[in-house]
Amino acid sequence: MINELVAKIQKTNAPIVVGLDPMLKYIPEHVTGKAYKEFGETLEGAAEAIWQFNKEIVDNIYDLIPAVKPQIAMYEQFGVEGMIAFKKTVDYCKEKGLVVIGDIKRGDIGSTSEAYAVGHLGKVQVGSKSCYGFNEDLATVNPYLGSDGVEPFIDVCKKEKKGIFILVKTSNPSSGEFQDRLIDGRPLYEIVGEKVAEWGAQHMGESYSYIGAVVGATYPEMGKALRKIMPKAYILVPGYGAQGGKGADLAHFFNEDGLGAIVNSSRGIIAAYKEEKYAGFGAENFGAASRAAVEDMQKDIASALK
Amino acid sequence: MINELVAKIQKTNAPIVVGLDPMLKYIPEHVTGKAYKEFGETLEGAAEAIWQFNKEIVDNIYDLIPAVKPQIAMYEQFGVEGMIAFKKTVDYCKEKGLVVIGDIKRGDIGSTSEAYAVGHLGKVQVGSKSCYGFNEDLATVNPYLGSDGVEPFIDVCKKEKKGIFILVKTSNPSSGEFQDRLIDGRPLYEIVGEKVAEWGAQHMGESYSYIGAVVGATYPEMGKALRKIMPKAYILVPGYGAQGGKGADLAHFFNEDGLGAIVNSSRGIIAAYKEEKYAGFGAENFGAASRAAVEDMQKDIASALK
Repeated sequence: MINELVAKIQKTNAPIVVGLDPMLKYIPEHVTGKAYKEFGETLEGAAEAIWQFNKEIVDNIYDLIPAVKPQIAMYEQFGVEGMIAFKKTVDYCKEKGLVVIGDIKRGDIGSTSEAYAVGHLGKVQVGSKSCYGFNEDLATVNPYLGSDGVEPFIDVCKKEKKGIFILVKTSNPSSGEFQDRLIDGRPLYEIVGEKVAEWGAQHMGESYSYIGAVVGATYPEMGKALRKIMPKAYILVPGYGAQGGKGADLAHFFNEDGLGAIVNSSRGIIAAYKEEKYAGFGAENFGAASRAAVEDMQKDIASALK
Repeated sequence: MINELVAKIQKTNAPIVVGLDPMLKYIPEHVTGKAYKEFGETLEGAAEAIWQFNKEIVDNIYDLIPAVKPQIAMYEQFGVEGMIAFKKTVDYCKEKGLVVIGDIKRGDIGSTSEAYAVGHLGKVQVGSKSCYGFNEDLATVNPYLGSDGVEPFIDVCKKEKKGIFILVKTSNPSSGEFQDRLIDGRPLYEIVGEKVAEWGAQHMGESYSYIGAVVGATYPEMGKALRKIMPKAYILVPGYGAQGGKGADLAHFFNEDGLGAIVNSSRGIIAAYKEEKYAGFGAENFGAASRAAVEDMQKDIASALK
């Protein structure tokens, strides 16, 4: 899947992943209104609204980008109904030829991590049959529990030719509370980065490893250091746009081959119609606004990488 | 909810939580066979089997214990169908008067952590209505992202009078890879423990905080140190029994009031009928075997606390 992701990035010339994180406040009233009319102001109504919203956006942008990243929390908040909308979104994006990164940030120990890995990336055995659960292409993983938590994911990834992105340095303001603490003079995120490189060597694709990392766009200097520590890891870069990361900051996350990173934008794309710049589209045409925002992001990143 | 948990622990004289982590290999053939006959060897069949298995165990033990801890990964591996079984299990346990700790180990940033908090412990706003998603009483949370990841949970807990247990020192063999690394001469888990005490002061119950910690039974000396660092935090202690933690190791996790810790056992209880000691019950009576195992665990812990 990492080879496929790299190929799609090269084909689209867009190292971009769109975060499908549909908060209800981003969804135009004509979409929520229709869903609530059919299903009421219920979990089912909310799930229908986010699914219709996602579908319209995906239909407008799928040919421009290699990948999407649904944030499962935004679905899980609506309980079982939300999980159904998550699964529909994953399946639909795959039908449209997009690589799907499940932003699940799971991580547990031994057989429990294995269950998450199987449920999101692999197949679970039921009697004599094996069945797919959510079946994303890649997923994000939390490293706090150490190798016991990560290796079951790697095992499933090897079987399925899938991959993971391990949280190394997250984009949020308080990420430094633990991640930046110095251990023998070096920050924890570098220690985690070294483990990512080590884990990554176990499951290499053609030019990059199936085991990647998450490093926030909001910390470009740390990105530069981590780029060197994990040369073969694809870096998933959140925090561009709405969170404050700028195109110019992104160059550090890429290798000299122009590859090695994929930049996420969520709000900036899916709620583009709410920004002044794209307000001309109107709420009715929110999908077209998202398309314009993707095109602008693609140009911004291309000029930063020149 | 922390006050209610403490009261139930005192009433049952059992600082015990039973982990409802139903792997298919633990479930007797008469249960899986019936489920597969009705729904096939499918995700639905698996979900029916784990739900029937849980129900039988809960019916046999609910009067002996204060709380259960379903591990969501064991449900999530079966996709949407598994999540339906998780929700049925949560609801049923609450009906039976049990406190339900969702072992979800979620953790993300800002609005994303808020979505997890709302989905598992609070109510989500849908138009003019607010709806419960999974509605556990307490949940486990991963601290790697720092305060941004934890505070949205605390906010929801304050509104709902619910609580969380934050991962501090996990029970697995490789937990030390990052958690034991020294920062200014002190291990990371102690730094996290200090933050738990700080976060806990924001949301106090009568004698304990709504903000607790997870510390593995497999590390009793670390438990002793952490007990002092977080005197008001309830400690959820996994790793007893099947993972190697012994009754005698547990005393360190408790305060002098005999409170302050709740010990989890999963496999040792729910798959008791597979152990030599309880084999006499037979697979048909797996629920009765679980009851005997709870009674033995209660005695083991009581004698360790004498």
